[in-house]
Amino acid sequence: MKNRVAKRMTTISPSLTLAISAKAKAMKAAGESVVSFGVGEPDFNTPEHIIAAAKAALDAGHTKYTPSSGLLPLRKAICDKFKKDNNLDYEPSQIIVSNGAKHSIFNACYALLDEGDEVIIPEPYWLTYPEVVKVCGGVVKTLPCKKENKYKFTAQELKAAITPKTKMLIFNSPSNPTGAVYTEKEVREIAAVCEEAEIFVLADEIYEKLCYNGVKAFSIAAVSEKMKELTVTVNGVSKSYAMTGWRIGYLAAPKDVAKAIDSFQSHATSNASSISQYATIEALKAPEEEITAMVNVFDKRRAKLLALIESIDGVGAVEPDGAFYVMMVISDLFGKSYKGKKITNSIEFADALLDGEKVATVPGISFGADDCVRLSYALSEQDIDEGLARIKRFVSELE
Amino acid sequence: MKNRVAKRMTTISPSLTLAISAKAKAMKAAGESVVSFGVGEPDFNTPEHIIAAAKAALDAGHTKYTPSSGLLPLRKAICDKFKKDNNLDYEPSQIIVSNGAKHSIFNACYALLDEGDEVIIPEPYWLTYPEVVKVCGGVVKTLPCKKENKYKFTAQELKAAITPKTKMLIFNSPSNPTGAVYTEKEVREIAAVCEEAEIFVLADEIYEKLCYNGVKAFSIAAVSEKMKELTVTVNGVSKSYAMTGWRIGYLAAPKDVAKAIDSFQSHATSNASSISQYATIEALKAPEEEITAMVNVFDKRRAKLLALIESIDGVGAVEPDGAFYVMMVISDLFGKSYKGKKITNSIEFADALLDGEKVATVPGISFGADDCVRLSYALSEQDIDEGLARIKRFVSELE
Repeated sequence: MKNRVAKRMTTISPSLTLAISAKAKAMKAAGESVVSFGVGEPDFNTPEHIIAAAKAALDAGHTKYTPSSGLLPLRKAICDKFKKDNNLDYEPSQIIVSNGAKHSIFNACYALLDEGDEVIIPEPYWLTYPEVVKVCGGVVKTLPCKKENKYKFTAQELKAAITPKTKMLIFNSPSNPTGAVYTEKEVREIAAVCEEAEIFVLADEIYEKLCYNGVKAFSIAAVSEKMKELTVTVNGVSKSYAMTGWRIGYLAAPKDVAKAIDSFQSHATSNASSISQYATIEALKAPEEEITAMVNVFDKRRAKLLALIESIDGVGAVEPDGAFYVMMVISDLFGKSYKGKKITNSIEFADALLDGEKVATVPGISFGADDCVRLSYALSEQDIDEGLARIKRFVSELE
Repeated sequence: MKNRVAKRMTTISPSLTLAISAKAKAMKAAGESVVSFGVGEPDFNTPEHIIAAAKAALDAGHTKYTPSSGLLPLRKAICDKFKKDNNLDYEPSQIIVSNGAKHSIFNACYALLDEGDEVIIPEPYWLTYPEVVKVCGGVVKTLPCKKENKYKFTAQELKAAITPKTKMLIFNSPSNPTGAVYTEKEVREIAAVCEEAEIFVLADEIYEKLCYNGVKAFSIAAVSEKMKELTVTVNGVSKSYAMTGWRIGYLAAPKDVAKAIDSFQSHATSNASSISQYATIEALKAPEEEITAMVNVFDKRRAKLLALIESIDGVGAVEPDGAFYVMMVISDLFGKSYKGKKITNSIEFADALLDGEKVATVPGISFGADDCVRLSYALSEQDIDEGLARIKRFVSELE
């Protein structure tokens, strides 16, 4: 027999951090008091009025197939959102609702990438980007982002990275894991380079609403008509409305791309959950105050987390302007040992920290940044206090 | 610039029947009394206890990410289902829960097919199979199924269709659109051919519970350990529990295949809706009587529909033993005209029927069977009476 599993499956990298996260889970399950900075979802509940809308949909019998690309009223609500928040005009036919923003990203890559197409991924990156690009036949070209520039690449750096094979840039602002948010001016400079080189941009704007320090994210599709024709904008309700489990993401795309994705999705998965779709219509109507309140809570935690990191000798962090993560730089500690075990990289650091102090973090190597661990602040201030006290003790015991 | 949309997207066939279904929808929206035999979902509501379980999940805050392959209790419940219904032993790690059975089929094809691999698809087929195979790089090889054998292929016919490039057979019993159900003996003969040729079987068992005439579907994975190692079994709750909108499908696979799909899904879509997953745990515990009651209703409609077709001169049907569709043979009418318009194929027939009598059907060409139109009986007996009266009148007016 030939190979059992398709070759493309072998391009997926085994998770470097699976062992650590499995260990953290097992410790928690065993009742140990693990403080987890690993989480990638808000610790808030989905707002009550959204839950109520889901129940109303259940009572109304909205439990049947919907159009594959999503309910028309939902796609209209998404168009309104793009107009209101991003000054972008789309028609409902240009919107595809999927089973989470991750699914939207996969759909966009699958619809755009041919075998051998190069995709520029700024580094540190969300770990799924390179895996999706590879499994769709693309070739990953990372673009290192400097700490000195708050983990943001410049238009010049992008230009230098483009080759005749470049098909797309993945542009994630605010960024997971760095929290980097590009200003309108920076976005316009980047867009100019993309327009000139005629490369697509996959704009992942899932953390759009989570900005601090008065910074505001700017949609690259809004730069010009030409840029809009080259941009697929991905967003969703997971992060901004505490709806991770509901699995509703969406994208807005130029007509030819939207048509291809619609057709593909109709055969590959069909519609996302009808109940979640009705709940999302309600979510998108939610008063902005609700989100502002959540952002304020995150902002307080962010300040606390940064201050506590600052208070620990040997670690540091670039202040993030968005999302809910901090990359804690730990590379100054490499070479030291914890209880006789030498630490030389982010996995060994995270592993020793989990073993010694029951604090779970995500090793930076997952994001292409082995000098860091990622700390989420989607957990209570009390847990942040406790967790950082443990990290401080851990670091002080290194020798 | 290079091509905008990836080449693989161009393999997706444009829907031949989109124009007709759009017309039927528009007529309905305009308030016209269309009788639609086009539907592919039960007209029952999701049972109350399942709705209640979803509400309980919402109240309990089960609105967060779940493991990518599905909640462990759900995967355990699915293992129990396979044991109870199909005499199949799987571990939870071999189960992947996805956004509908269609998604499970896509995942299986994506994980198994390399560029150029041949896939045997019995014809008439569910229209998504060839599209999914093509978009995953596979080559479609249809295997015509004879009406004289109740639309079932034989082991000998399968054997003759296998080439050195054959990677997989798609085996859908009960079948959409034909309602064909293979007996245990037939399944064992087919399995023997697959084992000898070492080809995979994608067993789509979504209509498993919907069997009539005392016929029972038999899982090909249950034939032998060797066959189990070559089979990916797909099932879900859409059709048996009237849960189409919830989007929960699942598959059971050999360990190496399950591992690849798990890894792929974790990057491509992640988990299906958490709320739908909790509802599905409840559904799988549902008393068998609930399903039996639904099957009895379908069976009465089936009998009525068959009898009414029988009463119309010039059309006919092979009695289906499963699912909720009848393929009505119309080819004896080809060459006749309706109000001056000649009818020479299934699209022209369906179009004229919709225009003339406001009856919506699906042209058989969608399923590779241009001599038929597909009638669903997932509609009330009253609608079946009315619809067939209209069809009778339509046929009588052909000249």
